[in-house]
Amino acid sequence: MKRILLFLLLISQLAVADDGYRLWLKYDLIKDMPKREAYARSAQFIAVTGTSPMLKSAADELQMGLQGLLGKSVPIIANATSRTGGIVLSVANGPAAGSQILMADGYRLTSRRAGNLTISGKTNAGVLYGVFALLRQVQTGQSIDNLAVTSNPKIQYRLLNHWDNTNGTIERGYAGESLWKWYELPETVDPRYRDYARANASLGINGTVVNNVNASARFLTDEYIQKVAALANVFRAYGIRIYLSVYFPAPKTLGSLTPNGLKTADPLDPAVRKWWAEKTKDIYKAIPDFGGFLVKANSEGEPGPQDYGRTHADGANMLAEALKPYDGIVLWRAFVYKSDPKSDRFKAAYEEFTPLDGTFDKKVIIQVKNGPIDFQPREPYSPLFGNMPKTPLAMEFQITQEYLGFATHWVYEAPLFKECLDTDTHVKDKGTGSTVANVIDGSLHQYAMTAIAGVANTGSDRNWTGNPMAQANWYAYGRLAWDHTLTSEGIAREWVNMTLTSEPKAVKTITDLMLRSRNIYVSYNTPLGLSRPWAGVHFAPEPWQEKSPRPDWTAIYYHRADSIGLGFDRTATGSNALAQYRPEVQKIWQNPDTCPLPYLLWFHHVPWTKKLATGRTLWDELCTHFYTGADSVGWMQQQWAQVKPAIDPQIFADVTGRLATQHNEAIWWRDSWVLYLQTYSKQPIPAPFQKPDRTLEDVKRLSEIYKLR
Amino acid sequence: MKRILLFLLLISQLAVADDGYRLWLKYDLIKDMPKREAYARSAQFIAVTGTSPMLKSAADELQMGLQGLLGKSVPIIANATSRTGGIVLSVANGPAAGSQILMADGYRLTSRRAGNLTISGKTNAGVLYGVFALLRQVQTGQSIDNLAVTSNPKIQYRLLNHWDNTNGTIERGYAGESLWKWYELPETVDPRYRDYARANASLGINGTVVNNVNASARFLTDEYIQKVAALANVFRAYGIRIYLSVYFPAPKTLGSLTPNGLKTADPLDPAVRKWWAEKTKDIYKAIPDFGGFLVKANSEGEPGPQDYGRTHADGANMLAEALKPYDGIVLWRAFVYKSDPKSDRFKAAYEEFTPLDGTFDKKVIIQVKNGPIDFQPREPYSPLFGNMPKTPLAMEFQITQEYLGFATHWVYEAPLFKECLDTDTHVKDKGTGSTVANVIDGSLHQYAMTAIAGVANTGSDRNWTGNPMAQANWYAYGRLAWDHTLTSEGIAREWVNMTLTSEPKAVKTITDLMLRSRNIYVSYNTPLGLSRPWAGVHFAPEPWQEKSPRPDWTAIYYHRADSIGLGFDRTATGSNALAQYRPEVQKIWQNPDTCPLPYLLWFHHVPWTKKLATGRTLWDELCTHFYTGADSVGWMQQQWAQVKPAIDPQIFADVTGRLATQHNEAIWWRDSWVLYLQTYSKQPIPAPFQKPDRTLEDVKRLSEIYKLR
Repeated sequence: MKRILLFLLLISQLAVADDGYRLWLKYDLIKDMPKREAYARSAQFIAVTGTSPMLKSAADELQMGLQGLLGKSVPIIANATSRTGGIVLSVANGPAAGSQILMADGYRLTSRRAGNLTISGKTNAGVLYGVFALLRQVQTGQSIDNLAVTSNPKIQYRLLNHWDNTNGTIERGYAGESLWKWYELPETVDPRYRDYARANASLGINGTVVNNVNASARFLTDEYIQKVAALANVFRAYGIRIYLSVYFPAPKTLGSLTPNGLKTADPLDPAVRKWWAEKTKDIYKAIPDFGGFLVKANSEGEPGPQDYGRTHADGANMLAEALKPYDGIVLWRAFVYKSDPKSDRFKAAYEEFTPLDGTFDKKVIIQVKNGPIDFQPREPYSPLFGNMPKTPLAMEFQITQEYLGFATHWVYEAPLFKECLDTDTHVKDKGTGSTVANVIDGSLHQYAMTAIAGVANTGSDRNWTGNPMAQANWYAYGRLAWDHTLTSEGIAREWVNMTLTSEPKAVKTITDLMLRSRNIYVSYNTPLGLSRPWAGVHFAPEPWQEKSPRPDWTAIYYHRADSIGLGFDRTATGSNALAQYRPEVQKIWQNPDTCPLPYLLWFHHVPWTKKLATGRTLWDELCTHFYTGADSVGWMQQQWAQVKPAIDPQIFADVTGRLATQHNEAIWWRDSWVLYLQTYSKQPIPAPFQKPDRTLEDVKRLSEIYKLR
Repeated sequence: MKRILLFLLLISQLAVADDGYRLWLKYDLIKDMPKREAYARSAQFIAVTGTSPMLKSAADELQMGLQGLLGKSVPIIANATSRTGGIVLSVANGPAAGSQILMADGYRLTSRRAGNLTISGKTNAGVLYGVFALLRQVQTGQSIDNLAVTSNPKIQYRLLNHWDNTNGTIERGYAGESLWKWYELPETVDPRYRDYARANASLGINGTVVNNVNASARFLTDEYIQKVAALANVFRAYGIRIYLSVYFPAPKTLGSLTPNGLKTADPLDPAVRKWWAEKTKDIYKAIPDFGGFLVKANSEGEPGPQDYGRTHADGANMLAEALKPYDGIVLWRAFVYKSDPKSDRFKAAYEEFTPLDGTFDKKVIIQVKNGPIDFQPREPYSPLFGNMPKTPLAMEFQITQEYLGFATHWVYEAPLFKECLDTDTHVKDKGTGSTVANVIDGSLHQYAMTAIAGVANTGSDRNWTGNPMAQANWYAYGRLAWDHTLTSEGIAREWVNMTLTSEPKAVKTITDLMLRSRNIYVSYNTPLGLSRPWAGVHFAPEPWQEKSPRPDWTAIYYHRADSIGLGFDRTATGSNALAQYRPEVQKIWQNPDTCPLPYLLWFHHVPWTKKLATGRTLWDELCTHFYTGADSVGWMQQQWAQVKPAIDPQIFADVTGRLATQHNEAIWWRDSWVLYLQTYSKQPIPAPFQKPDRTLEDVKRLSEIYKLR
């Protein structure tokens, strides 16, 4: 009977194609029977003391996971006093494990032969994270004997930011509509909300901003607070707190609909402050564990305190005051730039924010995009990092692939995140830990609060992220938010094992593809420090785009191609944005001969004929990148084809299709760039590359067609 | 072993909550074992001769369905010559079944004791439809012994119209994004496309227009033709042909992107005609069974032949000429109205199209919305029906609930469809079959072609239609497209049995709810012939809305409330739109005392104090409708609560939530209408109804909030 059951479970798993819904929490039956039985001997029961919703989530997840992985039902019991061979969940420091101290949210896994396996945390959340860590251990086929693991998160607030609108659209979303069905809430609660929370909790993500930073005032109406509260009620049992993006002039906007409503949103106006205090009180009444506010103000046309002659600090501190009675924070975004055709947008955030260092309330964190411009495929780190010692800075990464090929191009982002986190800002002497990661984890400036945010790539698509491979970016972001010292390769291997296959050769092939994917994308898209060759939709190549309401919304603003060369001079002879970095950084980047090639055109206008360190001229080097980049997608296709036997057929076909599209589009990018830049460089395509079989007019027409209704 | 297998199948079905994805094709195991075994005795094999993709679809579907329903694997064999007790699929007339002749697309089911059960059709499609009919027979628990059924579709072209855009949005879609992932096609083919085709084939739907009638010229580019062809390749095996909505000025729009492109889209210009001929050739090269073109022209700002001084017939006939070498048709929409503040929009389509009767090419069908305005909750039938004897008219119904409460309000639409289809146009003498259905099925005027279209309510939501109950509208549309003589009740009962439950009391309760739902909605929304109390989003009540670029886009244009009364005088003393109907119809509708109450305010401006046939004044009757309508949603909630034990918990919770929202919104509608109309009627809310506990300003503010970003 038992064998039949297992057989049938296997059959049913084989029969149902994998639609990707389960993400990395698949819990498929372990096929290696001795291994499965070894795990089962240590998992004869789950003992949990306490009845908090989060502990219940933890026990339920563990039970469900083991049911799938081991093919047996593991009972949950209240007390394990006299029993061994089971798993004990415990809110306590737990048995010592080396010298590491258990911190809030941290977990400890300990197991000894002939005893129980203990999952302990100082908090309920810690236990929950420990459960997912243990499941991950089993999912990746590692032993759970003699465990002595302590893991604490390096960052306190680990958030997702959803740029989701009330009408269900997602700004820069490529995987369907918003997960949040605002129209149906609060009465109808989609079961999917719980699975979203489970996935995040499995990574240690503990907060989510559910609405777009270009926010609607509707989120501050009683109606929407009830809707948001219904989501919070689901997320709470998974340790996830809800935050709201706020529309800064909301008091005025909503006031205009009431007879005696406010006519201003001036942050220093007492009536406005009172409005926010009362609104915040209403929110906490509905959502006692509300996380706080995220604000985009005086940025890209969004209103803000400067409309009233006030500063970012005036605005942020007003909201901090409203949050004072509660355990909530203000996340104020540094993504700002003025409409000044002469200025270098690169410099704007530093110029606006560093003078305010030390003037923010202690409940305020400034949220800074990883680079100075806007989530380009490769950017130098933002010079704000290291230059606001008195103000906690949060990192804002973009998981959704706005500039990385939407849901089609396969770009594993961990290397992008790590490249930024691991860069040395040289704020202190070498060797004392001045990386960007050390800034945001608080170790460099002893910040009292630390935070990291990822702009989510999730949507209503069945598999959450459109491209099945993009699930890895959500995963990698979450894992790095917990521990930025993890390696891109380690995270990739872990994810592949949990999500796609445990066949060693396939794991190696896919991990290798993932690790190379970002550089391949950069090669055909924006090599050598090029950036922003896009028009409005951020999709089709338009390096020629020169008309826009703002100069810094054109493509030519960024690459500055002319008859002499290419690139944006940001040295002292140009915009001098380089001066915002520490001298040690300037020293290397200011010289085109020592500036790393990936950043070259970010800082220098380089002659077409200049010989680079590779021995090629700039023009030849560019062509080499464009051509080998596009060719490498062909290589990706070949590599992917080889893993077919190890992958679910539906997932395999899906990725195969997307790679074919990516290949076509990579060639489109290549042809667009070389045909356009050739009008300036006046040089031939170097051998062995073939010149494109279409004209510049042809590729221009393709992007015009994309702009038709 | 067999019993264990069945037990496990049952367990696994219980364990997985129903997410609605399988629609009415659930094929869950029949729990009544004697019944199941009786079916199994007649289904020991499936014999199919021939290898066409459609026959393969038919055999596969039958095998899958029986696997689920009977819990056993039924083999597919090539030949049943010497065997009995199985099911034979056969493209042939099949054994005689009464006197009915088998027509193209029709099917015949015959079974005799100790023989085989034969599913025959004159075409492959007929066999496929017969398979679904047999499965339906089993799903609804009916005997399959001694079958002698012949069923032919009453209408030839049975289409869905998708108002889907290239960017994935759906105009008037309330169930997620477009099913068609244009960006991923043709390389990535979502497995869902096949399930879409299966669902449609199960109803006999044989064509689908995949893009919005407000069409993008992009669909006529080589790139999009390849994308559309990839969909067609999936649909073909289910007998579904693809049609495209075309942007009439496409030759000019696409021409403007090429150096020597066309500068005009004038349908009489030979170069334009050549462009369409070549484009059509390209389409047929990629999609040999392409269905044809659907056109919205010179309507609501869409360009058309009138821009060049040409007629609708000139435009339609040009496309017909392009389609001449192929088996494709032109569906030209009659939904047109000019921007003339003095005219009655009601009359526009009749005025523009009846003079053209007889001037259209024989490949052209004119597609007419059921009512003269625009898919209101209740409209009189369009006066075009019966008045274009020489031009085939197609019916256009709207399945998506644009004006029927989106995906929240529970409105079963079969009674709406039937009300229109069964109305007598009095074109011929009484008793000779002059209903609207007789017009569109061709029997009245002997049309050479017949067609019906439903604007789809499907989207990327897991359950296809958002509200699980809205699946019934897709189902009902399809069933009526095949056979308009089916009853609303019969279709409802069938759908409930296949989709929700076979528990007899629950079936009765739900069927009853469905049958009453549309009148309940009309009561609180637009009773007594009110219409269009909406602003742009067609969601929030705004009967007061009076500002718009066009007078016929305001709400006051339609209800004409003043101090004397309410309603639009369309008799001879008013716009005289009534004159477009036959004298027999006019006679009844022109007199406010004989005009049926549901149409009263469509045709008459009625004094507030006029006594109606119900014995109440207009004002009191209106209030009675608004109040009892809203109260009836409370009744729906109570009724629905009673079926809980018989319904899957996830579906039950979902519908329960939506009913709660519907109840709130019904009260919002009620309050908006009575508070607003009261400013004209100056009369109190009649006993026993309580006056609203909010003011007109309060409800106006609610809709203002909805309009905020």
